[in-house]
Amino acid sequence: MSRKYAIGVDLGGTKIATGIVDMDAKLLDQVVMDTAAQEGVEAVLGRMAESVRTLMDRQGVKAEDVLGIGVCSPGPLDRETGIVLAAPNLGWTNVHLGPMLQELTGITTYVENDANAAALAEKWMGAGRGAKNMVYITVSTGVGSGIIINGSLYAGSHGTAGEVGHIVMEDGGPLCGCGQRGCLEAYASGTAIARMAREALESGTQSKIRDLVEDNLEAVSAKVVGEAAAQGDEVANAILDKAFHYLGLGMISVINLFDPELIVIGGGVRQLGGRQAG
Amino acid sequence: MSRKYAIGVDLGGTKIATGIVDMDAKLLDQVVMDTAAQEGVEAVLGRMAESVRTLMDRQGVKAEDVLGIGVCSPGPLDRETGIVLAAPNLGWTNVHLGPMLQELTGITTYVENDANAAALAEKWMGAGRGAKNMVYITVSTGVGSGIIINGSLYAGSHGTAGEVGHIVMEDGGPLCGCGQRGCLEAYASGTAIARMAREALESGTQSKIRDLVEDNLEAVSAKVVGEAAAQGDEVANAILDKAFHYLGLGMISVINLFDPELIVIGGGVRQLGGRQAG
Repeated sequence: MSRKYAIGVDLGGTKIATGIVDMDAKLLDQVVMDTAAQEGVEAVLGRMAESVRTLMDRQGVKAEDVLGIGVCSPGPLDRETGIVLAAPNLGWTNVHLGPMLQELTGITTYVENDANAAALAEKWMGAGRGAKNMVYITVSTGVGSGIIINGSLYAGSHGTAGEVGHIVMEDGGPLCGCGQRGCLEAYASGTAIARMAREALESGTQSKIRDLVEDNLEAVSAKVVGEAAAQGDEVANAILDKAFHYLGLGMISVINLFDPELIVIGGGVRQLGGRQAG
Repeated sequence: MSRKYAIGVDLGGTKIATGIVDMDAKLLDQVVMDTAAQEGVEAVLGRMAESVRTLMDRQGVKAEDVLGIGVCSPGPLDRETGIVLAAPNLGWTNVHLGPMLQELTGITTYVENDANAAALAEKWMGAGRGAKNMVYITVSTGVGSGIIINGSLYAGSHGTAGEVGHIVMEDGGPLCGCGQRGCLEAYASGTAIARMAREALESGTQSKIRDLVEDNLEAVSAKVVGEAAAQGDEVANAILDKAFHYLGLGMISVINLFDPELIVIGGGVRQLGGRQAG
Protein backbone atom coordinates (compact mmCIF):
# COMPACT_ATOMS: atom_id res chain seq x y z
CA MET A 1 0.00 0.00 0.00
CA SER A 2 1.36 3.41 -0.93
CA ARG A 3 1.79 6.25 1.57
CA LYS A 4 -1.30 8.32 2.31
CA TYR A 5 -1.57 12.08 2.74
CA ALA A 6 -4.03 14.77 3.74
CA ILE A 7 -4.18 18.41 2.67
CA GLY A 8 -5.30 21.31 4.83
CA VAL A 9 -6.32 24.72 3.52
CA ASP A 10 -6.60 27.71 5.88
CA LEU A 11 -8.78 30.25 4.11
CA GLY A 12 -8.30 33.70 5.67
CA GLY A 13 -9.30 37.23 4.77
CA THR A 14 -5.73 38.04 3.67
CA LYS A 15 -3.94 34.75 2.94
CA ILE A 16 -4.66 31.21 1.81
CA ALA A 17 -2.24 28.85 3.58
CA THR A 18 -2.17 25.29 2.28
CA GLY A 19 -0.19 22.37 3.71
CA ILE A 20 0.25 18.68 3.00
CA VAL A 21 0.76 16.25 5.89
CA ASP A 22 1.46 12.55 6.28
CA MET A 23 -0.56 10.21 8.48
CA ASP A 24 1.42 11.35 11.55
CA ALA A 25 0.24 14.91 10.79
CA LYS A 26 3.84 15.87 9.94
CA LEU A 27 3.84 18.96 7.71
CA LEU A 28 5.77 17.99 4.55
CA ASP A 29 5.34 21.15 2.51
CA GLN A 30 3.27 24.32 2.42
CA VAL A 31 2.37 27.20 0.14
CA VAL A 32 0.90 30.61 1.00
CA MET A 33 -0.99 32.80 -1.47
CA ASP A 34 -2.93 36.05 -1.26
CA THR A 35 -6.67 35.53 -0.91
CA ALA A 36 -7.48 38.59 -3.05
CA ALA A 37 -11.17 38.10 -2.29
CA GLN A 38 -12.06 41.21 -4.31
CA GLU A 39 -11.40 39.16 -7.48
CA GLY A 40 -14.47 37.03 -6.73
CA VAL A 41 -15.36 33.55 -5.57
CA GLU A 42 -14.14 31.69 -8.66
CA ALA A 43 -10.72 33.34 -8.56
CA VAL A 44 -10.31 32.47 -4.87
CA LEU A 45 -11.43 28.87 -5.46
CA GLY A 46 -9.05 28.67 -8.41
CA ARG A 47 -6.13 29.75 -6.19
CA MET A 48 -7.10 27.20 -3.52
CA ALA A 49 -7.14 24.42 -6.15
CA GLU A 50 -3.86 25.67 -7.59
CA SER A 51 -2.19 25.59 -4.17
CA VAL A 52 -3.40 21.99 -3.70
CA ARG A 53 -1.99 20.97 -7.11
CA THR A 54 1.32 22.75 -6.44
CA LEU A 55 1.86 20.75 -3.25
CA MET A 56 0.91 17.44 -4.88
CA ASP A 57 3.27 18.13 -7.82
CA ARG A 58 6.16 19.20 -5.59
CA GLN A 59 5.75 16.14 -3.34
CA GLY A 60 4.96 13.74 -6.19
CA VAL A 61 1.65 12.76 -4.61
CA LYS A 62 -1.22 11.26 -6.67
CA ALA A 63 -4.87 12.18 -6.07
CA GLU A 64 -5.74 8.63 -5.01
CA ASP A 65 -3.20 8.88 -2.17
CA VAL A 66 -4.80 12.01 -0.70
CA LEU A 67 -7.45 10.97 1.83
CA GLY A 68 -9.11 14.35 1.67
CA ILE A 69 -8.86 18.11 1.77
CA GLY A 70 -9.88 19.86 4.97
CA VAL A 71 -10.68 23.54 4.58
CA CYS A 72 -11.03 25.81 7.59
CA SER A 73 -13.04 28.85 6.71
CA PRO A 74 -14.54 31.86 8.40
CA GLY A 75 -18.14 30.98 9.31
CA PRO A 76 -21.05 30.61 9.87
CA LEU A 77 -21.09 27.61 7.59
CA ASP A 78 -22.89 24.33 7.11
CA ARG A 79 -20.42 21.56 7.94
CA GLU A 80 -22.61 18.87 6.34
CA THR A 81 -22.89 20.49 2.92
CA GLY A 82 -19.66 22.52 2.91
CA ILE A 83 -21.55 25.73 2.19
CA VAL A 84 -20.23 29.00 3.68
CA LEU A 85 -23.38 30.86 4.71
CA ALA A 86 -21.71 34.23 5.32
CA ALA A 87 -18.10 35.38 5.47
CA PRO A 88 -18.14 39.19 5.73
CA ASN A 89 -14.33 39.48 5.43
CA LEU A 90 -14.51 37.74 2.06
CA GLY A 91 -17.79 39.32 0.95
CA TRP A 92 -19.23 35.79 0.62
CA THR A 93 -22.84 34.63 1.02
CA ASN A 94 -23.94 31.04 0.40
CA VAL A 95 -20.72 29.98 -1.31
CA HIS A 96 -20.62 26.23 -2.07
CA LEU A 97 -16.99 26.06 -0.99
CA GLY A 98 -16.72 22.32 -0.30
CA PRO A 99 -18.50 21.05 -3.44
CA MET A 100 -16.66 23.57 -5.68
CA LEU A 101 -13.17 22.72 -4.39
CA GLN A 102 -13.99 19.01 -4.60
CA GLU A 103 -15.03 19.46 -8.24
CA LEU A 104 -11.87 21.45 -9.08
CA THR A 105 -9.48 18.97 -7.42
CA GLY A 106 -11.30 15.63 -7.69
CA ILE A 107 -10.51 15.08 -3.99
CA THR A 108 -13.11 14.69 -1.21
CA THR A 109 -13.33 18.03 0.59
CA TYR A 110 -14.53 18.84 4.11
CA VAL A 111 -15.23 22.35 5.39
CA GLU A 112 -15.07 23.37 9.05
CA ASN A 113 -15.31 26.61 11.01
CA ASP A 114 -11.78 27.84 11.78
CA ALA A 115 -12.07 27.77 15.59
CA ASN A 116 -13.55 24.25 15.46
CA ALA A 117 -10.78 23.05 13.14
CA ALA A 118 -8.15 24.49 15.49
CA ALA A 119 -9.84 22.80 18.47
CA LEU A 120 -9.68 19.44 16.67
CA ALA A 121 -6.02 20.03 15.75
CA GLU A 122 -5.13 20.82 19.39
CA LYS A 123 -7.07 17.77 20.54
CA TRP A 124 -5.48 15.37 18.03
CA MET A 125 -1.94 16.70 17.81
CA GLY A 126 -1.44 19.64 20.16
CA ALA A 127 -1.89 20.84 23.72
CA GLY A 128 -5.18 18.98 24.17
CA ARG A 129 -3.89 15.52 23.27
CA GLY A 130 -5.74 12.89 25.32
CA ALA A 131 -8.27 15.39 26.70
CA LYS A 132 -11.87 14.19 26.85
CA ASN A 133 -13.44 17.62 27.48
CA MET A 134 -11.56 20.66 26.24
CA VAL A 135 -12.31 24.21 25.16
CA TYR A 136 -10.07 25.93 22.61
CA ILE A 137 -10.32 29.73 22.68
CA THR A 138 -8.81 31.81 19.89
CA VAL A 139 -8.14 35.49 20.52
CA SER A 140 -7.28 37.37 17.35
CA THR A 141 -9.35 39.90 15.36
CA GLY A 142 -12.36 38.35 17.11
CA VAL A 143 -12.77 35.85 19.94
CA GLY A 144 -14.04 32.37 19.11
CA SER A 145 -13.89 28.88 20.49
CA GLY A 146 -14.17 25.24 19.58
CA ILE A 147 -15.58 22.79 22.10
CA ILE A 148 -14.56 19.15 22.51
CA ILE A 149 -16.99 17.03 24.56
CA ASN A 150 -16.45 13.33 25.19
CA GLY A 151 -13.59 13.44 22.69
CA SER A 152 -15.67 14.83 19.80
CA LEU A 153 -16.32 18.28 18.44
CA TYR A 154 -19.55 19.76 19.83
CA ALA A 155 -21.05 22.05 17.21
CA GLY A 156 -24.46 22.68 18.80
CA SER A 157 -27.97 22.33 17.44
CA HIS A 158 -27.47 24.80 14.58
CA GLY A 159 -23.68 24.60 14.21
CA THR A 160 -23.07 27.77 16.24
CA ALA A 161 -21.91 26.46 19.63
CA GLY A 162 -18.72 27.95 21.07
CA GLU A 163 -19.47 31.60 20.32
CA VAL A 164 -17.54 32.55 23.44
CA GLY A 165 -16.85 35.99 21.97
CA HIS A 166 -20.49 36.87 22.54
CA ILE A 167 -21.01 35.89 26.17
CA VAL A 168 -22.10 38.99 28.10
CA MET A 169 -19.41 40.48 30.37
CA GLU A 170 -21.11 43.76 31.39
CA ASP A 171 -24.71 44.89 31.07
CA GLY A 172 -24.65 47.90 28.71
CA GLY A 173 -20.90 47.58 28.04
CA PRO A 174 -19.13 48.61 24.82
CA LEU A 175 -20.92 47.92 21.53
CA CYS A 176 -19.81 44.70 19.82
CA GLY A 177 -19.68 44.09 16.07
CA CYS A 178 -22.60 41.67 16.56
CA GLY A 179 -24.90 44.51 17.65
CA GLN A 180 -25.05 43.42 21.30
CA ARG A 181 -23.36 45.34 24.15
CA GLY A 182 -20.71 44.12 26.60
CA CYS A 183 -19.65 40.95 24.73
CA LEU A 184 -16.29 39.38 25.60
CA GLU A 185 -15.17 40.24 22.05
CA ALA A 186 -15.80 43.94 22.81
CA TYR A 187 -13.15 43.73 25.58
CA ALA A 188 -10.62 41.04 24.72
CA SER A 189 -10.21 40.89 20.91
CA GLY A 190 -7.60 42.56 18.70
CA THR A 191 -10.39 44.83 17.46
CA ALA A 192 -11.29 45.83 21.04
CA ILE A 193 -7.65 46.48 21.98
CA ALA A 194 -7.26 48.79 18.98
CA ARG A 195 -10.57 50.53 19.83
CA MET A 196 -9.55 51.13 23.46
CA ALA A 197 -6.20 52.54 22.30
CA ARG A 198 -7.89 54.90 19.80
CA GLU A 199 -10.31 56.06 22.50
CA ALA A 200 -7.39 56.80 24.85
CA LEU A 201 -5.52 58.78 22.16
CA GLU A 202 -8.67 60.68 21.15
CA SER A 203 -9.10 61.82 24.75
CA GLY A 204 -5.57 63.30 24.55
CA THR A 205 -3.69 60.66 26.57
CA GLN A 206 0.07 60.58 26.01
CA SER A 207 1.39 57.20 24.92
CA LYS A 208 4.07 55.59 22.75
CA ILE A 209 1.19 54.25 20.68
CA ARG A 210 0.80 57.79 19.27
CA ASP A 211 4.47 57.93 18.25
CA LEU A 212 4.38 54.48 16.66
CA VAL A 213 1.49 55.45 14.37
CA GLU A 214 2.84 58.98 13.86
CA ASP A 215 -0.41 60.49 15.19
CA ASN A 216 -2.48 58.63 12.57
CA LEU A 217 -5.26 57.05 14.66
CA GLU A 218 -6.43 54.96 11.71
CA ALA A 219 -3.15 53.04 11.90
CA VAL A 220 -3.70 51.96 15.52
CA SER A 221 -3.87 48.16 15.71
CA ALA A 222 -3.56 45.53 18.43
CA LYS A 223 -0.07 44.82 17.10
CA VAL A 224 0.98 48.45 17.61
CA VAL A 225 -0.48 48.42 21.15
CA GLY A 226 1.58 45.26 21.79
CA GLU A 227 4.75 46.96 20.52
CA ALA A 228 4.16 49.99 22.76
CA ALA A 229 3.48 47.69 25.74
CA ALA A 230 6.71 45.76 25.10
CA GLN A 231 8.51 49.12 25.21
CA GLY A 232 7.07 49.75 28.69
CA ASP A 233 4.29 52.14 27.70
CA GLU A 234 1.84 52.38 30.62
CA VAL A 235 -1.27 53.17 28.59
CA ALA A 236 -0.67 50.21 26.29
CA ASN A 237 -0.01 47.91 29.23
CA ALA A 238 -3.18 49.06 30.99
CA ILE A 239 -5.20 48.27 27.85
CA LEU A 240 -3.68 44.80 27.55
CA ASP A 241 -4.26 44.24 31.30
CA LYS A 242 -7.92 45.08 30.82
CA ALA A 243 -8.27 42.80 27.79
CA PHE A 244 -6.59 39.87 29.56
CA HIS A 245 -8.60 40.53 32.74
CA TYR A 246 -11.85 40.15 30.81
CA LEU A 247 -10.48 37.12 29.00
CA GLY A 248 -9.88 35.62 32.46
CA LEU A 249 -13.44 36.46 33.59
CA GLY A 250 -14.77 34.83 30.42
CA MET A 251 -12.71 31.72 31.19
CA ILE A 252 -14.30 31.55 34.67
CA SER A 253 -17.70 31.33 32.97
CA VAL A 254 -16.46 28.69 30.51
CA ILE A 255 -15.03 26.60 33.38
CA ASN A 256 -18.25 26.89 35.41
CA LEU A 257 -20.37 25.78 32.46
CA PHE A 258 -18.16 23.11 30.81
CA ASP A 259 -15.88 21.87 33.62
CA PRO A 260 -13.23 21.01 30.98
CA GLU A 261 -9.94 19.25 31.67
CA LEU A 262 -8.18 22.18 30.07
CA ILE A 263 -8.62 25.37 28.08
CA VAL A 264 -6.19 25.87 25.20
CA ILE A 265 -5.63 29.46 24.09
CA GLY A 266 -4.61 30.33 20.55
CA GLY A 267 -4.57 33.39 18.29
CA GLY A 268 -2.08 36.21 18.00
CA VAL A 269 -3.42 38.45 20.78
CA ARG A 270 -2.16 36.17 23.57
CA GLN A 271 1.45 37.06 22.75
CA LEU A 272 1.05 40.85 22.59
CA GLY A 273 3.41 42.96 24.64
CA GLY A 274 5.78 40.02 25.16
CA ARG A 275 3.12 38.27 27.26
CA GLN A 276 2.27 34.60 27.01
CA ALA A 277 -1.16 33.40 28.00
CA GLY A 278 -2.05 29.75 27.42
CA MET B 1 -43.93 -10.69 33.98
CA SER B 2 -45.09 -8.50 36.86
CA ARG B 3 -45.35 -4.74 36.61
CA LYS B 4 -42.16 -2.79 37.30
CA TYR B 5 -41.73 0.43 39.27
CA ALA B 6 -39.15 3.07 40.12
CA ILE B 7 -38.89 5.24 43.22
CA GLY B 8 -37.60 8.81 43.30
CA VAL B 9 -36.48 10.65 46.42
CA ASP B 10 -36.03 14.43 46.40
CA LEU B 11 -33.80 15.27 49.35
CA GLY B 12 -34.10 18.94 50.23
CA GLY B 13 -33.01 21.12 53.12
CA THR B 14 -36.57 21.23 54.51
CA LYS B 15 -38.50 18.28 53.05
CA ILE B 16 -37.95 14.77 51.76
CA ALA B 17 -40.42 14.11 48.92
CA THR B 18 -40.65 10.51 47.75
CA GLY B 19 -42.69 9.18 44.84
CA ILE B 20 -43.30 5.87 43.14
CA VAL B 21 -43.84 5.74 39.37
CA ASP B 22 -44.66 3.12 36.79
CA MET B 23 -42.67 2.55 33.60
CA ASP B 24 -44.52 5.44 31.90
CA ALA B 25 -43.25 7.71 34.69
CA LYS B 26 -46.82 8.10 35.94
CA LEU B 27 -46.76 9.14 39.60
CA LEU B 28 -48.79 6.51 41.52
CA ASP B 29 -48.28 7.72 45.07
CA GLN B 30 -46.12 10.08 47.10
CA VAL B 31 -45.16 10.91 50.64
CA VAL B 32 -43.54 14.04 52.05
CA MET B 33 -41.62 14.16 55.35
CA ASP B 34 -39.56 16.76 57.19
CA THR B 35 -35.84 16.39 56.55
CA ALA B 36 -34.97 17.45 60.14
CA ALA B 37 -31.28 17.37 59.23
CA GLN B 38 -30.32 18.51 62.74
CA GLU B 39 -31.13 14.99 63.96
CA GLY B 40 -28.13 13.65 62.06
CA VAL B 41 -27.33 11.59 58.97
CA GLU B 42 -28.69 8.25 60.26
CA ALA B 43 -32.04 9.77 61.23
CA VAL B 44 -32.40 11.39 57.77
CA LEU B 45 -31.43 8.16 56.01
CA GLY B 46 -33.88 6.28 58.23
CA ARG B 47 -36.71 8.61 57.17
CA MET B 48 -35.78 8.21 53.50
CA ALA B 49 -35.90 4.40 53.85
CA GLU B 50 -39.17 4.65 55.77
CA SER B 51 -40.76 6.77 53.03
CA VAL B 52 -39.69 4.16 50.44
CA ARG B 53 -41.18 1.33 52.50
CA THR B 54 -44.40 3.29 53.09
CA LEU B 55 -44.97 3.70 49.35
CA MET B 56 -44.17 0.05 48.59
CA ASP B 57 -46.56 -1.11 51.34
CA ARG B 58 -49.35 1.24 50.25
CA GLN B 59 -49.00 0.20 46.61
CA GLY B 60 -48.39 -3.49 47.36
CA VAL B 61 -45.07 -3.44 45.49
CA LYS B 62 -42.32 -5.99 46.17
CA ALA B 63 -38.63 -5.06 46.25
CA GLU B 64 -37.86 -7.26 43.23
CA ASP B 65 -40.32 -5.20 41.15
CA VAL B 66 -38.59 -1.89 41.92
CA LEU B 67 -35.92 -1.25 39.26
CA GLY B 68 -34.14 1.22 41.47
CA ILE B 69 -34.24 4.25 43.71
CA GLY B 70 -33.08 7.56 42.26
CA VAL B 71 -32.14 10.19 44.83
CA CYS B 72 -31.63 13.80 43.86
CA SER B 73 -29.53 15.57 46.41
CA PRO B 74 -27.88 18.92 46.93
CA GLY B 75 -24.31 18.63 45.64
CA PRO B 76 -21.40 18.56 44.96
CA LEU B 77 -21.50 14.79 44.90
CA ASP B 78 -19.85 11.82 43.25
CA ARG B 79 -22.41 10.26 40.91
CA GLU B 80 -20.35 7.07 40.50
CA THR B 81 -20.10 6.22 44.20
CA GLY B 82 -23.24 7.96 45.46
CA ILE B 83 -21.25 9.97 48.01
CA VAL B 84 -22.42 13.51 48.84
CA LEU B 85 -19.18 15.47 49.16
CA ALA B 86 -20.70 18.55 50.77
CA ALA B 87 -24.27 19.71 51.39
CA PRO B 88 -24.09 22.87 53.53
CA ASN B 89 -27.89 23.07 53.99
CA LEU B 90 -27.84 19.60 55.57
CA GLY B 91 -24.52 20.01 57.40
CA TRP B 92 -23.24 16.98 55.46
CA THR B 93 -19.67 16.17 54.42
CA ASN B 94 -18.73 12.92 52.66
CA VAL B 95 -22.00 11.17 53.37
CA HIS B 96 -22.26 7.75 51.67
CA LEU B 97 -25.88 8.45 50.75
CA GLY B 98 -26.26 5.94 47.89
CA PRO B 99 -24.61 2.93 49.57
CA MET B 100 -26.40 3.62 52.90
CA LEU B 101 -29.89 3.89 51.39
CA GLN B 102 -29.23 0.80 49.27
CA GLU B 103 -28.26 -1.12 52.42
CA LEU B 104 -31.34 0.06 54.30
CA THR B 105 -33.79 -0.77 51.49
CA GLY B 106 -32.13 -3.62 49.63
CA ILE B 107 -32.83 -1.75 46.38
CA THR B 108 -30.19 -0.48 43.94
CA THR B 109 -29.82 3.26 44.58
CA TYR B 110 -28.50 6.02 42.31
CA VAL B 111 -27.63 9.54 43.43
CA GLU B 112 -27.66 12.60 41.17
CA ASN B 113 -27.23 16.35 41.62
CA ASP B 114 -30.70 17.95 41.80
CA ALA B 115 -30.29 20.23 38.75
CA ASN B 116 -28.98 17.31 36.68
CA ALA B 117 -31.84 15.07 37.80
CA ALA B 118 -34.36 17.77 36.86
CA ALA B 119 -32.68 18.19 33.45
CA LEU B 120 -33.02 14.45 32.80
CA ALA B 121 -36.67 14.51 33.93
CA GLU B 122 -37.46 17.41 31.57
CA LYS B 123 -35.61 15.63 28.74
CA TRP B 124 -37.35 12.28 29.26
CA MET B 125 -40.83 13.33 30.31
CA GLY B 126 -41.17 17.12 30.29
CA ALA B 127 -40.61 20.25 28.22
CA GLY B 128 -37.41 18.91 26.66
CA ARG B 129 -38.83 15.70 25.25
CA GLY B 130 -37.05 14.81 22.01
CA ALA B 131 -34.42 17.52 22.42
CA LYS B 132 -30.88 16.50 21.54
CA ASN B 133 -29.16 19.50 23.13
CA MET B 134 -30.93 21.22 26.00
CA VAL B 135 -30.05 23.32 29.03
CA TYR B 136 -32.26 23.22 32.13
CA ILE B 137 -31.84 26.23 34.42
CA THR B 138 -33.30 26.21 37.91
CA VAL B 139 -33.78 29.51 39.70
CA SER B 140 -34.61 29.09 43.38
CA THR B 141 -32.46 29.74 46.46
CA GLY B 142 -29.51 29.47 44.09
CA VAL B 143 -29.16 29.24 40.31
CA GLY B 144 -28.05 25.94 38.79
CA SER B 145 -28.32 24.04 35.56
CA GLY B 146 -28.22 20.60 34.02
CA ILE B 147 -26.87 20.16 30.51
CA ILE B 148 -28.04 17.61 27.96
CA ILE B 149 -25.68 17.10 25.02
CA ASN B 150 -26.38 14.61 22.24
CA GLY B 151 -29.27 13.28 24.33
CA SER B 152 -27.19 12.50 27.43
CA LEU B 153 -26.41 14.34 30.61
CA TYR B 154 -23.09 16.20 30.38
CA ALA B 155 -21.53 16.34 33.84
CA GLY B 156 -18.06 17.65 32.91
CA SER B 157 -14.59 16.36 33.72
CA HIS B 158 -15.02 16.59 37.51
CA GLY B 159 -18.82 16.37 37.73
CA THR B 160 -19.26 20.13 38.08
CA ALA B 161 -20.43 21.25 34.62
CA GLY B 162 -23.52 23.45 34.46
CA GLU B 163 -22.63 25.82 37.30
CA VAL B 164 -24.48 28.58 35.45
CA GLY B 165 -25.03 30.41 38.75
CA HIS B 166 -21.35 31.30 38.77
CA ILE B 167 -20.82 32.74 35.32
CA VAL B 168 -19.56 36.31 35.67
CA MET B 169 -22.13 39.01 34.85
CA GLU B 170 -20.27 42.13 36.05
CA ASP B 171 -16.62 42.66 36.92
CA GLY B 172 -16.58 43.56 40.63
CA GLY B 173 -20.35 43.08 41.03
CA PRO B 174 -22.11 41.97 44.24
CA LEU B 175 -20.42 39.32 46.37
CA CYS B 176 -21.71 35.79 45.76
CA GLY B 177 -21.91 33.01 48.33
CA CYS B 178 -19.10 31.27 46.40
CA GLY B 179 -16.65 34.08 47.25
CA GLN B 180 -16.52 35.43 43.70
CA ARG B 181 -18.07 38.78 42.67
CA GLY B 182 -20.73 39.47 40.04
CA CYS B 183 -21.97 35.88 39.58
CA LEU B 184 -25.39 35.33 37.98
CA GLU B 185 -26.53 33.87 41.32
CA ALA B 186 -25.71 37.22 42.99
CA TYR B 187 -28.33 38.87 40.72
CA ALA B 188 -30.98 36.35 39.79
CA SER B 189 -31.46 33.91 42.71
CA GLY B 190 -34.02 33.96 45.51
CA THR B 191 -31.16 34.86 47.85
CA ALA B 192 -30.16 37.80 45.63
CA ILE B 193 -33.75 39.05 45.35
CA ALA B 194 -34.07 39.04 49.15
CA ARG B 195 -30.68 40.78 49.51
CA MET B 196 -31.61 43.53 47.03
CA ALA B 197 -34.90 44.07 48.87
CA ARG B 198 -33.15 44.31 52.27
CA GLU B 199 -30.64 46.78 50.82
CA ALA B 200 -33.49 48.92 49.48
CA LEU B 201 -35.29 48.91 52.85
CA GLU B 202 -32.08 49.63 54.76
CA SER B 203 -31.54 52.72 52.62
CA GLY B 204 -34.98 53.94 53.75
CA THR B 205 -36.96 53.19 50.56
CA GLN B 206 -40.74 52.98 51.02
CA SER B 207 -42.23 49.70 49.82
CA LYS B 208 -45.01 47.22 50.56
CA ILE B 209 -42.24 44.75 51.31
CA ARG B 210 -41.70 46.63 54.60
CA ASP B 211 -45.37 46.29 55.56
CA LEU B 212 -45.49 42.60 54.69
CA VAL B 213 -42.57 41.82 57.02
CA GLU B 214 -43.77 44.34 59.64
CA ASP B 215 -40.43 46.19 59.48
CA ASN B 216 -38.48 43.02 60.36
CA LEU B 217 -35.76 42.96 57.69
CA GLU B 218 -34.71 39.44 58.69
CA ALA B 219 -38.08 38.19 57.42
CA VAL B 220 -37.55 39.54 53.88
CA SER B 221 -37.55 36.67 51.39
CA ALA B 222 -37.93 36.30 47.62
CA LYS B 223 -41.47 35.08 48.29
CA VAL B 224 -42.35 38.29 50.15
CA VAL B 225 -40.84 40.38 47.32
CA GLY B 226 -43.02 38.40 44.90
CA GLU B 227 -46.13 39.10 47.00
CA ALA B 228 -45.37 42.83 47.10
CA ALA B 229 -44.75 42.84 43.33
CA ALA B 230 -48.07 41.07 42.68
CA GLN B 231 -49.73 43.87 44.70
CA GLY B 232 -48.17 46.43 42.34
CA ASP B 233 -45.29 47.57 44.54
CA GLU B 234 -42.80 49.46 42.34
CA VAL B 235 -39.71 48.68 44.39
CA ALA B 236 -40.47 44.95 44.39
CA ASN B 237 -41.20 44.99 40.66
CA ALA B 238 -37.94 46.84 39.93
CA ILE B 239 -36.01 44.21 41.89
CA LEU B 240 -37.69 41.36 40.00
CA ASP B 241 -37.08 43.20 36.70
CA LYS B 242 -33.39 43.41 37.54
CA ALA B 243 -33.19 39.72 38.50
CA PHE B 244 -34.98 38.60 35.33
CA HIS B 245 -32.90 40.99 33.20
CA TYR B 246 -29.69 39.36 34.44
CA LEU B 247 -31.23 35.91 34.00
CA GLY B 248 -31.83 36.90 30.36
CA LEU B 249 -28.23 38.10 29.94
CA GLY B 250 -27.03 34.79 31.39
CA MET B 251 -29.21 32.92 28.92
CA ILE B 252 -27.58 34.87 26.05
CA SER B 253 -24.22 33.49 27.19
CA VAL B 254 -25.62 29.96 27.53
CA ILE B 255 -27.09 30.15 24.00
CA ASN B 256 -23.83 31.48 22.54
CA LEU B 257 -21.82 28.68 24.14
CA PHE B 258 -24.16 25.69 23.83
CA ASP B 259 -26.45 26.52 20.89
CA PRO B 260 -29.17 24.35 22.47
CA GLU B 261 -32.51 23.54 20.88
CA LEU B 262 -34.17 24.95 23.97
CA ILE B 263 -33.64 26.20 27.50
CA VAL B 264 -36.09 24.93 30.11
CA ILE B 265 -36.51 27.09 33.21
CA GLY B 266 -37.55 25.64 36.56
CA GLY B 267 -37.47 26.65 40.19
CA GLY B 268 -39.87 28.80 42.21
CA VAL B 269 -38.35 32.21 41.42
CA ARG B 270 -39.65 32.20 37.83
CA GLN B 271 -43.23 32.58 39.04
CA LEU B 272 -42.68 35.41 41.53
CA GLY B 273 -44.90 38.45 41.25
CA GLY B 274 -47.37 36.59 39.06
CA ARG B 275 -44.79 36.36 36.29
CA GLN B 276 -44.09 33.30 34.21
CA ALA B 277 -40.69 32.80 32.64
CA GLY B 278 -39.97 29.49 30.90
